[in-house]
Amino acid sequence: MVHKNKILNFIINSTFEAILDQIDEIHPVDFLEALAEFEEDPIIVLSKLPDEYVGLLLDYAEDDEKFKLLSLFSEKRKGQIVSEMSSDELVDLLGSLDEEDKNAIINNMNVDDVEEVKELLSYDPESAGGIMATEFIAIKESYTVNETIEYLRTMAPDSETPYYIYVVDGFDVLKGVVPLREIIVSDPDTLIKDIMIEKIISAPVDMDQEEVSNIFEKYGFMAIPVTDHKGVILGIVTVDDVIEIMKEEYTEDMFRLAGLDEEEKISGSVSSAIKSRLPWLLVNLVTAILAAATVSLFENTIAQIVALATFMPIVAGMGGNAGTQTLTMIIRGIALGELSYENQKEILQKEISIGLINGLCLGLVVAMLGYFWVGSFAFGFVIGLAMFLNLIVATVSGYYVPVILKKIGIDPALASAVFVTTVTDVLGFFFFLGLATIMITSLI
Amino acid sequence: MVHKNKILNFIINSTFEAILDQIDEIHPVDFLEALAEFEEDPIIVLSKLPDEYVGLLLDYAEDDEKFKLLSLFSEKRKGQIVSEMSSDELVDLLGSLDEEDKNAIINNMNVDDVEEVKELLSYDPESAGGIMATEFIAIKESYTVNETIEYLRTMAPDSETPYYIYVVDGFDVLKGVVPLREIIVSDPDTLIKDIMIEKIISAPVDMDQEEVSNIFEKYGFMAIPVTDHKGVILGIVTVDDVIEIMKEEYTEDMFRLAGLDEEEKISGSVSSAIKSRLPWLLVNLVTAILAAATVSLFENTIAQIVALATFMPIVAGMGGNAGTQTLTMIIRGIALGELSYENQKEILQKEISIGLINGLCLGLVVAMLGYFWVGSFAFGFVIGLAMFLNLIVATVSGYYVPVILKKIGIDPALASAVFVTTVTDVLGFFFFLGLATIMITSLI
Repeated sequence: MVHKNKILNFIINSTFEAILDQIDEIHPVDFLEALAEFEEDPIIVLSKLPDEYVGLLLDYAEDDEKFKLLSLFSEKRKGQIVSEMSSDELVDLLGSLDEEDKNAIINNMNVDDVEEVKELLSYDPESAGGIMATEFIAIKESYTVNETIEYLRTMAPDSETPYYIYVVDGFDVLKGVVPLREIIVSDPDTLIKDIMIEKIISAPVDMDQEEVSNIFEKYGFMAIPVTDHKGVILGIVTVDDVIEIMKEEYTEDMFRLAGLDEEEKISGSVSSAIKSRLPWLLVNLVTAILAAATVSLFENTIAQIVALATFMPIVAGMGGNAGTQTLTMIIRGIALGELSYENQKEILQKEISIGLINGLCLGLVVAMLGYFWVGSFAFGFVIGLAMFLNLIVATVSGYYVPVILKKIGIDPALASAVFVTTVTDVLGFFFFLGLATIMITSLI
Repeated sequence: MVHKNKILNFIINSTFEAILDQIDEIHPVDFLEALAEFEEDPIIVLSKLPDEYVGLLLDYAEDDEKFKLLSLFSEKRKGQIVSEMSSDELVDLLGSLDEEDKNAIINNMNVDDVEEVKELLSYDPESAGGIMATEFIAIKESYTVNETIEYLRTMAPDSETPYYIYVVDGFDVLKGVVPLREIIVSDPDTLIKDIMIEKIISAPVDMDQEEVSNIFEKYGFMAIPVTDHKGVILGIVTVDDVIEIMKEEYTEDMFRLAGLDEEEKISGSVSSAIKSRLPWLLVNLVTAILAAATVSLFENTIAQIVALATFMPIVAGMGGNAGTQTLTMIIRGIALGELSYENQKEILQKEISIGLINGLCLGLVVAMLGYFWVGSFAFGFVIGLAMFLNLIVATVSGYYVPVILKKIGIDPALASAVFVTTVTDVLGFFFFLGLATIMITSLI
């Protein structure tokens, strides 16, 4: 929105005071975009910025850009800049580095910050603790509105949520929340405990990030507090983190379903793409060999009725498609938390009904096709019945495979497709060629 | 989080005063969940709630639930309840109704609201204007901080963003924004124009919702203002709307890729699921018939070498998998705006290289497999070469199919998979069985 050249020219040609006065008009994202197109040494511009703003730039930079940017500064300034970063972004930065680079940064930080960061690094990066920031505003319930305003004015605490104020007891146990707006419209002598909302939804520190993002989506919150098992508030997760997570989790699901490594980038190198895709193709090769082995059991039958070979792609293809439909529905349902213990039986029954009805329809169509193509009623019966059976197998395995994988702790998106198509291929061929073998005398 | 029975029992057994006092402790989402499981007439509970809270319930209810809930009330209360709803949710409700139901509701509304709602209904539902709400706080730049606080206290204006205050001139042209926190920490006599941020990013009223959601993602905003071509502020879009949009767009892509209607719900009826899935299976049947027809061209060859039938699933399956990998990468790249005019040639070249290398690796593995399984060097050569060729076809069609669909205005997620697997099936069988036919004398 802002002209890119203007931003950098303004920084280069202004005094530190003028920059300080105007810098909050430049969104860090716009600055980073301008800097990416800057053809001279970036330190010419960066060295003129206040630490606080450089900290913001690092907060907004992509994870793999953060360290590159930071590396441009002297050892001494690195520590100052890092102390201005949001704790959650700093942890993302440190988490992406090797031990040596990480320690170099930690050594430049002050002792309190180091302790906090080490604690944050100890949580699973994909849990509530791993994505939370520790910058939040907490006050005691005995405060008045006026005392709260005084506290905000004089202490100017750093916060990722400038719109919720959390209320805690003497042990930092979360007691309630007060929207900032209540502070403004309430009488100055009102006690915080009289205006706070008490029933608040918080995320346990070890909750999976996908579940955290489901809470945001369900309730439409801007931020939620993260607590330990005693109810002590440890940090907050804000909605902008959740948007990042949604994008990541979605790409991950989609890529895994297709047999791609979730880290593969469209503009990445050929070698990284081969590393992402070849292993998965080899896994699929094993399952294709299983299907081939099933076919090979019936080579005698095929030798007698070659039309069976012609119809093989139809049985296997349709089974695979129907299985993928159910599978995708179930995987999305698991991701969105819509498949629960209470409704799982009902959903399995529904999928079986769908398999029965779609199987009946497609079975009839394919039976007619077989009858007219090959000119044999028995052939139509065999292909139609095989199709019917395979569509039921498709919906049942499309349901059970992701549900079982989830239960044993494997991401259903990762391996479901390969299992389901193996089942539909192997059983599809088995039904089709097996029935043909049984009925061989009517078919020849 | 809150026990469901408790919520409704509390409402049923309490006086209106007690309910009014406690109701803001019950999140509308939790209330709706409790109500969904309530086995008696819902009006028993609903009639005891204040209009404002019922308005909130309608705001949070799913689009198809809003009208059902509203219908439970008398004509007179409907008007009162509707006037308490957020404008964006009210527009979603009205947009989902037929003319008669819509007019019945509009007739119960007051004149000012009707005009506003009619204007909102005039925007494309998938544009910034179609998703914005008109509840925002706007003040003049000549206000002081103290005057602003007085305004917030006495007028208590409705707002979807209780954390940004927009600053406008005499013609409602947007001039800046002041975060609510600045109001609290600034001296009461400070002029708003001295603390406001002037360079603000806003969405033109006709901007597509996907672009609006990209702005949120890029900048991490909580809300952005929507303006007309003169810069007049018309409304705001908040981040919770954007999360809804992201979820919808994701589910749509994923479902379309799998051949599911994007409206299908995991807990929907069997008949709606059949309507979503069967047409797609029939489309796939047509393509499976194409593959079968290709095979039937070579029935003579298969009759002479039945092992060809055994290896058919391997050629087709691997081609389909490799095609899906490329396809998914390209579709995601298109959705995220990562595939551009500048890099498309480079990405095509990359995909071809991947096809060549993966084709070479898998071709060799499969050639050896064929050699050892069938015991014929020529057979290994035929299956290996067919696999190599089909993997190149897979990456090339995986690239071109979505790119061409996009160019002619069809959602690539919708039809890409069926086209790509048709190409890999038909050409895979053609290469494999065609090569076998040419080399038939070496194979027997």
